[in-house]
Amino acid sequence: MQEDVLAQLCRGGDEVLRESELIEKLQEGRALRIKAGFDPTAPDLHLGHTVLINKLKQFQDFGHEVLFLIGDFTGMIGDPTGKNVTRKPLSRDEIIENARTYEQQIFKILDPEKTLVMFNSSWMNAMSSAELIQLAARHTVARMLERDDFSKRYKSGQPIAIHEFLYPLIQGYDSVAMKADVELGGTDQKFNLLVGRQLQEVYGQKPQVVITMPILEGLDGVQKMSKSLNNYIGIADPAEDMFGKIMSISDELMWRYFELLSFRPMAEISDWKAACEQGANPRDYKVRLALEIVERFHDQGAARKALESFEARFKRGAMPDVIEEKTLTCSAEGYAIANLLKDAGLTGSTSEAMRMIRQGAVKIDGEKVSDNKLVMPLNSQHVYQVGKRKFARVTVNP
Amino acid sequence: MQEDVLAQLCRGGDEVLRESELIEKLQEGRALRIKAGFDPTAPDLHLGHTVLINKLKQFQDFGHEVLFLIGDFTGMIGDPTGKNVTRKPLSRDEIIENARTYEQQIFKILDPEKTLVMFNSSWMNAMSSAELIQLAARHTVARMLERDDFSKRYKSGQPIAIHEFLYPLIQGYDSVAMKADVELGGTDQKFNLLVGRQLQEVYGQKPQVVITMPILEGLDGVQKMSKSLNNYIGIADPAEDMFGKIMSISDELMWRYFELLSFRPMAEISDWKAACEQGANPRDYKVRLALEIVERFHDQGAARKALESFEARFKRGAMPDVIEEKTLTCSAEGYAIANLLKDAGLTGSTSEAMRMIRQGAVKIDGEKVSDNKLVMPLNSQHVYQVGKRKFARVTVNP
Repeated sequence: MQEDVLAQLCRGGDEVLRESELIEKLQEGRALRIKAGFDPTAPDLHLGHTVLINKLKQFQDFGHEVLFLIGDFTGMIGDPTGKNVTRKPLSRDEIIENARTYEQQIFKILDPEKTLVMFNSSWMNAMSSAELIQLAARHTVARMLERDDFSKRYKSGQPIAIHEFLYPLIQGYDSVAMKADVELGGTDQKFNLLVGRQLQEVYGQKPQVVITMPILEGLDGVQKMSKSLNNYIGIADPAEDMFGKIMSISDELMWRYFELLSFRPMAEISDWKAACEQGANPRDYKVRLALEIVERFHDQGAARKALESFEARFKRGAMPDVIEEKTLTCSAEGYAIANLLKDAGLTGSTSEAMRMIRQGAVKIDGEKVSDNKLVMPLNSQHVYQVGKRKFARVTVNP
Repeated sequence: MQEDVLAQLCRGGDEVLRESELIEKLQEGRALRIKAGFDPTAPDLHLGHTVLINKLKQFQDFGHEVLFLIGDFTGMIGDPTGKNVTRKPLSRDEIIENARTYEQQIFKILDPEKTLVMFNSSWMNAMSSAELIQLAARHTVARMLERDDFSKRYKSGQPIAIHEFLYPLIQGYDSVAMKADVELGGTDQKFNLLVGRQLQEVYGQKPQVVITMPILEGLDGVQKMSKSLNNYIGIADPAEDMFGKIMSISDELMWRYFELLSFRPMAEISDWKAACEQGANPRDYKVRLALEIVERFHDQGAARKALESFEARFKRGAMPDVIEEKTLTCSAEGYAIANLLKDAGLTGSTSEAMRMIRQGAVKIDGEKVSDNKLVMPLNSQHVYQVGKRKFARVTVNP
């Protein structure tokens, strides 16, 4: 039983520091305080963010309490160097508004009854400069310079402002103020999470267990999921878009998404994977994943409707089960659609491609293309269709 | 006239950054704000400290205002790492008591009417952690690591706690809060004084002129004057001690002391030096220096009396004008007096030395020695006398 709980809590995790301490804490039998920190900027969550939020939910399912921390203190300072104009100080009203937007999104996954939304300004605004100095005394310059990005910047002569050394300490101090038992974060946050452990010890607390979660790959299966790379599924996306996007991913990526995004037991997922290896059609399982995800952020009805609409389109388009994979390389900022169709072998020439678009015979992921000046971005991956029979899943690499 | 003022203000200074700015400020015709910072620890000032205080007095003589800053803010924090047990936090009462002790001593030189004693806790206690972060954003890690002692410690793997990077910023910010026009400090303070210049610019002020003063050598003429090396003249020393110690210094050191400690015009001092080079007796000028210094910290009567008593002793002891110089090397912690007398050739053996001490025939700087177990410290320099005729000025080197 205990081992099963542990396996579930560690599922998909990159590192658990340390597992033995997690076991000890679980054995105490009380509701643990599970911390996760988020930027105070306007959130627009996508499935990449939900890897962490799903893990929080798992802890909730076992009776633990989620401390959802919004790091508004530094957000209200902004970027004091003035170099980063996009990091303007946020007002109190903006912070509250952003927090509300977070809540609307995270409560699609988390249980509001077992979630405490906290703001680190609560304790940081009350901290005097003398106390901050005492906090800064608890860490050394050399250890801070061991952090990957600091070390690279220092060696390459890029400036590091001194206050940047204070931010990991504040993040670590948050764990002290919150008395966190466990902190979750992306693998890129590992250093900061460990500062929390260290500071808790200094302040006489049992150090938090640190669980790092991997960064989720986007639809292309290569780059991390992000809005700016346009390879994301937003959790506010319409049901049909969400469904179609999941159906467009590669089979390999599907298993990754199952591990990190699905709430199905791992044993079941392993069975399905084995079935596919013995000839079952991966498409059938992709449908299950798509249904589960769409249902989570919409509802069962919407998921059903998205499936039906997808299948209708699928039948109309007669999309084959196996689609040829192509990878094209592009040195410019993007690939003009006509060139892409020609280079992928879907048309004989760019002028034929133009003609087919005009005739409404070109589809991307089942959607008709009307703009013949369309430029496909780098790192995109889509299923292209010309006429009734020609298909290719094309990845555009830089 | 202006040039004469400038020459007087720059007299003895190690560096003036920048002279052109100092000229500009002097030409504004207003009373400039001259800052100098001091530790909040219990002061026991010696002539080494007065090099700086004399310079402050020169500014006062030209009508400027001295801002005597006691850095009590960091003193009240103590050493947060707990590594330095001697740096315990000071209480408010201790700070006030120490400030009073400072005042009693500095007002022997400075004009209380033109001196403002300030405490940086006035503005630092009111600074929030957010404001301290904004201050920390104004300097980079790389520039801080350029400071000599930080650079050495970082390279040799000795830890630097992060709050140590904040102290120079606070010292610099003091200049902003005080609107300092000029800051004086020892050469070892140059880096911190320049941080003040930089921060004043960031905060929209005209940067302060920085004047660094050399560190005064102690009576040995080699090491810096310090209580722990026992090569100092305390400004609270009795008049006769003060007089005798000054009379014991070498001729070379005398000219150095004239430049940094005397208020006589440089032109006059140059004339005296030239006179000595043409055969005048340096001893006569040493008496003038001794009289001036004793008069400053006691009064004219005490200075006269100290001279008379010194001369009486001098005649009794028949101390020659030219005393042989000897340098002995010692590998232990100090030189036992009997060995020293023998090795300096003043006695034929250590047992003869012991006997002479018992008979009261041994003097150090004119004072009879009664303890035959006396150990002379390293880096000391004194005139030793055995009987009526044997003299040597002995330096003990490590």
